[in-house]
Amino acid sequence: MTGDTHVHPAWLPDAAFAALGSRRTLVIGEGLLVDTVVRELEAACARHGGAVHHREDPPHPHEFDLIMAVHSAAGALAAQAPGDLGTEGYAVARSDGTTLVLAAAPAGLLHGLFHLVRAGEAAFADAHPPAVHRPALARRMLDHWDNIDVHPVMGHVERGYAGGSIFWQGGGLTRDLDRVARYARLLAACGVNAVTVNNVNVHATEATLLTDRLADVATLADVLRPYGITTHLSVSFAAPRTVGGLPTADPLDLAVRDWWARTTRRVYEAIPDFGGYVVKADSEGQPGPSGYGRSHADGANTLAEALAPHGGVVHWRAFVYDHRQDWRDRGTDRARAAYDHFAPLDGQFDDNVILQVKYGPIDFQPREPVSPVIAAMPHTRLAVELQVTQEYTGQQRHVCYLAPLWREVLDFAPWGDEPPTVADVVARSGGLVAVSNVGDDAYWTGHPLAQANLYAFGRLAWDPGADPAAVLDEWIGLTFPAAGGDGTLRRILHDLMDDSWSVYEQYTAPLGIGFMVRPGTHYGPDVDGYEYTPWGTYHFADRDGIGVDRSRATGTGFAGQYPPHWAYVYESPRTCPDELLLFFHHVGYGHVLHSGETVIQHIYDTHFAGAERTVAMRRRWADAAGLVDDDLHARVSERLDEQVRSAAEWRDQVNTYFLRKSGVPDAYGRTIH
Amino acid sequence: MTGDTHVHPAWLPDAAFAALGSRRTLVIGEGLLVDTVVRELEAACARHGGAVHHREDPPHPHEFDLIMAVHSAAGALAAQAPGDLGTEGYAVARSDGTTLVLAAAPAGLLHGLFHLVRAGEAAFADAHPPAVHRPALARRMLDHWDNIDVHPVMGHVERGYAGGSIFWQGGGLTRDLDRVARYARLLAACGVNAVTVNNVNVHATEATLLTDRLADVATLADVLRPYGITTHLSVSFAAPRTVGGLPTADPLDLAVRDWWARTTRRVYEAIPDFGGYVVKADSEGQPGPSGYGRSHADGANTLAEALAPHGGVVHWRAFVYDHRQDWRDRGTDRARAAYDHFAPLDGQFDDNVILQVKYGPIDFQPREPVSPVIAAMPHTRLAVELQVTQEYTGQQRHVCYLAPLWREVLDFAPWGDEPPTVADVVARSGGLVAVSNVGDDAYWTGHPLAQANLYAFGRLAWDPGADPAAVLDEWIGLTFPAAGGDGTLRRILHDLMDDSWSVYEQYTAPLGIGFMVRPGTHYGPDVDGYEYTPWGTYHFADRDGIGVDRSRATGTGFAGQYPPHWAYVYESPRTCPDELLLFFHHVGYGHVLHSGETVIQHIYDTHFAGAERTVAMRRRWADAAGLVDDDLHARVSERLDEQVRSAAEWRDQVNTYFLRKSGVPDAYGRTIH
Repeated sequence: MTGDTHVHPAWLPDAAFAALGSRRTLVIGEGLLVDTVVRELEAACARHGGAVHHREDPPHPHEFDLIMAVHSAAGALAAQAPGDLGTEGYAVARSDGTTLVLAAAPAGLLHGLFHLVRAGEAAFADAHPPAVHRPALARRMLDHWDNIDVHPVMGHVERGYAGGSIFWQGGGLTRDLDRVARYARLLAACGVNAVTVNNVNVHATEATLLTDRLADVATLADVLRPYGITTHLSVSFAAPRTVGGLPTADPLDLAVRDWWARTTRRVYEAIPDFGGYVVKADSEGQPGPSGYGRSHADGANTLAEALAPHGGVVHWRAFVYDHRQDWRDRGTDRARAAYDHFAPLDGQFDDNVILQVKYGPIDFQPREPVSPVIAAMPHTRLAVELQVTQEYTGQQRHVCYLAPLWREVLDFAPWGDEPPTVADVVARSGGLVAVSNVGDDAYWTGHPLAQANLYAFGRLAWDPGADPAAVLDEWIGLTFPAAGGDGTLRRILHDLMDDSWSVYEQYTAPLGIGFMVRPGTHYGPDVDGYEYTPWGTYHFADRDGIGVDRSRATGTGFAGQYPPHWAYVYESPRTCPDELLLFFHHVGYGHVLHSGETVIQHIYDTHFAGAERTVAMRRRWADAAGLVDDDLHARVSERLDEQVRSAAEWRDQVNTYFLRKSGVPDAYGRTIH
Repeated sequence: MTGDTHVHPAWLPDAAFAALGSRRTLVIGEGLLVDTVVRELEAACARHGGAVHHREDPPHPHEFDLIMAVHSAAGALAAQAPGDLGTEGYAVARSDGTTLVLAAAPAGLLHGLFHLVRAGEAAFADAHPPAVHRPALARRMLDHWDNIDVHPVMGHVERGYAGGSIFWQGGGLTRDLDRVARYARLLAACGVNAVTVNNVNVHATEATLLTDRLADVATLADVLRPYGITTHLSVSFAAPRTVGGLPTADPLDLAVRDWWARTTRRVYEAIPDFGGYVVKADSEGQPGPSGYGRSHADGANTLAEALAPHGGVVHWRAFVYDHRQDWRDRGTDRARAAYDHFAPLDGQFDDNVILQVKYGPIDFQPREPVSPVIAAMPHTRLAVELQVTQEYTGQQRHVCYLAPLWREVLDFAPWGDEPPTVADVVARSGGLVAVSNVGDDAYWTGHPLAQANLYAFGRLAWDPGADPAAVLDEWIGLTFPAAGGDGTLRRILHDLMDDSWSVYEQYTAPLGIGFMVRPGTHYGPDVDGYEYTPWGTYHFADRDGIGVDRSRATGTGFAGQYPPHWAYVYESPRTCPDELLLFFHHVGYGHVLHSGETVIQHIYDTHFAGAERTVAMRRRWADAAGLVDDDLHARVSERLDEQVRSAAEWRDQVNTYFLRKSGVPDAYGRTIH
């Protein structure tokens, strides 16, 4: 795992293993993942002068700086283990000059290893009693929207901004499986434990991954498995017909169910620990059960039935809405769609169905309310879907550290001010899922700083209570060992990234209205771009005001999909938070926000401020010259140039649009074109 | 030429040859085009019972119903020939029961043949003295924007709405040369005599037509030649570098000039009657002389110098502007660009350079003023470029008969109310050019009624004084022989088509402002679609008014590019014609038009009226059921459905946009969403 010098090591540079690699370590336990731990330690020791012993029977423990042991194999050491560590948990203690990591299973030991990587020298400092670490969420999954064949419109990776797929190349499986292994290692190091290897929009070639191309999936699974990553597959609901040659894909048809059962059995023969299926059905043109007059529960349960004997799950996406809406029809509200489609089905889904719900009711906007579906289906397993790939948040040309956004989502208490939070719901239910931002780019993510989003997703999925700034700090420390110097680089990166989501929000669509992006690409401003389209994403700006009335009293009633606390809060502009005002209400440009500012002046102010802050970010980054690799510095600089340009374009288009429409001049007389 | 039953015969169905084919005809003359005349007559006679004799020495003329003779070969008959017929002219007379067609050259005889086709039985009715027919314009050219390789964005035919290319298929020359011959025959029958066989945006593969793929061009030329069609080629200005391997394409570099000379010599070796080159240089990303600090005259003259020894011409497009404009910069005006770039160069172009000027200063909009370049370059040969393909006029999904638009352009008197007109200018100069609307569709043009645009282009290029309704009538008579019945079908088609351009104008962008189309595709409405883009096509609508101030006094000064008469007329809203008001002026929504209506009410009225008229058109077409081939009826019906839908979409988006912006309600209280 010395690495191809053309691929950036991300948060696992050699230096991150310096503390571990210079110690004498004893590893106790058996299994594939224990072997991975040993291999990692051996590689580190080869570089940093330490030593590794891998034995069944512990010798004299005091000879070692570090003992890593799987519980069942630890013999006498097991006495020190605290309660239930679960499959992936581990305990860390230090006494008598020895650090001890205990796990109940090999996966826990692997996570313990990366805990030590993060801790560095601190893992070998002060003595402390056992501290237990367990993931809050059992499944922490990344969905890859990767195509095998380069799609004529959507490209190789749909909504990918980091080059081609790392899994698929030249119309088949990648030949660079080492790259896949490195990816698996990075994921394990941040806590991700499941991956879907193809796009949820399953095209013709990709549909055969389930059958003719299954061996390719198995090969990927073999590469991912040593890092504790389970492999999942996006499948087409129409597969029994398009791939299986049946005359129907009706989920209640016995031949169809039999086809799924047989096909799934073959999948498990090839991949015994296969995770399951991900399905986008009846959504944006994808086939689904509605074509046969069946419900989403009928559809999902048929697949679940096939997976159940093998322990697999179905991730069934709740991203279902009418994408052929008539913009003239103000009664239809896309925000309502997921709830309207799925809430009535609560309780009808099998136990191994996980309903995968986007965090907001629309589509990964930089600001949306949290989806009301999360509170509406207590008898259904729910996963929340985030988007690490920056489709609507700057496409990895803009710095936009997303952990603060996810933090707000996870902290949201759907039933009111008190827990349970969204994090609590998914912790006891379906976990977190996110769309990956990784491609075959040398920096993995195009923008080198976008690596932090991938890292933070894993860390927040493991510990939804983590502080975004602390996670960022951890990422900085690992990725830029030089940041440990006088702290300059660390401060620069925090200055650039801590508030970058807020900055992005400032210069883009105001006050939660969303979707003022160029149709198709979703990059850059186009205030009216989606206003008269069938996509259901409107702002209704006229000369007097802007916003979507989603109140129960006078609007689409979407606010009423929430439990009483939030239904009340969102119902009135008086109680609605400023940042969501235009999502829930149509107000005049002169409406005064809780901030004391009018809507129109808020638009001007935030757009001037946001664009100005990107200039400051670029200036700040100049200070990092010499503190990071030149190539990385240049890459970030070039993207900051684009961010500055793009932010100015956003500022000017949005401000001009609203000046032209409202006629209200800027209170400070700044230039609006 | 019996024809593939899968391809529609357009305006040359068998029935069109009934009168000719039932006569006894003597053809006198020699040469390729005379052979074509004989072959056409033989084919017609085989179907309709007549006979053809082709002899050098005329026998007893009274034995024939028709004598077609090339002047020089006509012996005694030549005495009847009136003055100078030119290469393509012919004279028609009838006396003593014999119709006589005389030409000075074979091409004239071919045109005389199609004259008789158009005349039908009338050609054999009353006696009349010789009538001379000569084309007003020497060159009547169609440009094909066809690619060899299917372009990933622009497709096989750029801005083509009738399927793939008829010239190129599967990455090379079409195998269906019969289709090309049929096309040539249709063109000859309407008067077109030159064709450019590839896209003006010359991509890599297409650049080699000049060299490696020259044999393919020669093959096409061989097929086009028998119908009097000259072959032209679009070339890349960078060819010496990209194809020739030279280090530069600097037009003043001797090696470059030598390369063009050698390359052109080889072209003429392969195609002795080759027409010449068409060049889009320094435009929308295409390379040009500016890259070497040279002028358009330098560039064009270098190619002209290479072509001159062989009698070829360069069509050099004047469509040059900054397509990376800043929308914030109101000082730059794309409308000014062609004049600003080219007028200073008047007199500097060689005699065999033809400057090809789009009819309007922007880009083929349904309504633009006529380009001021036409009056600005008296010492330069000018061709006017029209667009038969309906890029901005409904993309062959909408009925939009364009001859009335072209009629207005040709009748425009650039120096004032008196001639010369545009038609006069191009008649003594460079001719007419148009972008073809033909593809490999079974109806040639996708929308069967769009055939009329191709036909009318040829007929107007031959006779710019022709009446659009009469040309349409002629087309109807040829294309739908059944229309000769009780006249019902003829009336239906006139009802649908005569005013269809006006109807289209009504429901699309108002009052000459243009470009409210979806970016990229240019189909359907998007009022702000181009408003904040680099393309230079803005409407500047705000809550108070709309339009571009192009006056000298307060605007961009574009109005001043016209000679005094029009400079005066366009300078003030008081004198500017209503239909161009927003092209030249920014006015308030309450501004009262010459029509007596306010701008805003005009917008509402025309959009309601235009959309309503498409409904009437569809209703009217229903009456044609049974009067035309069922398949054709269905094809037109299906497109009318789309036109009705699209027109309603235009109506609603435009009206809603302006209601939201102006706040002025419709005076008649109609539904605006």
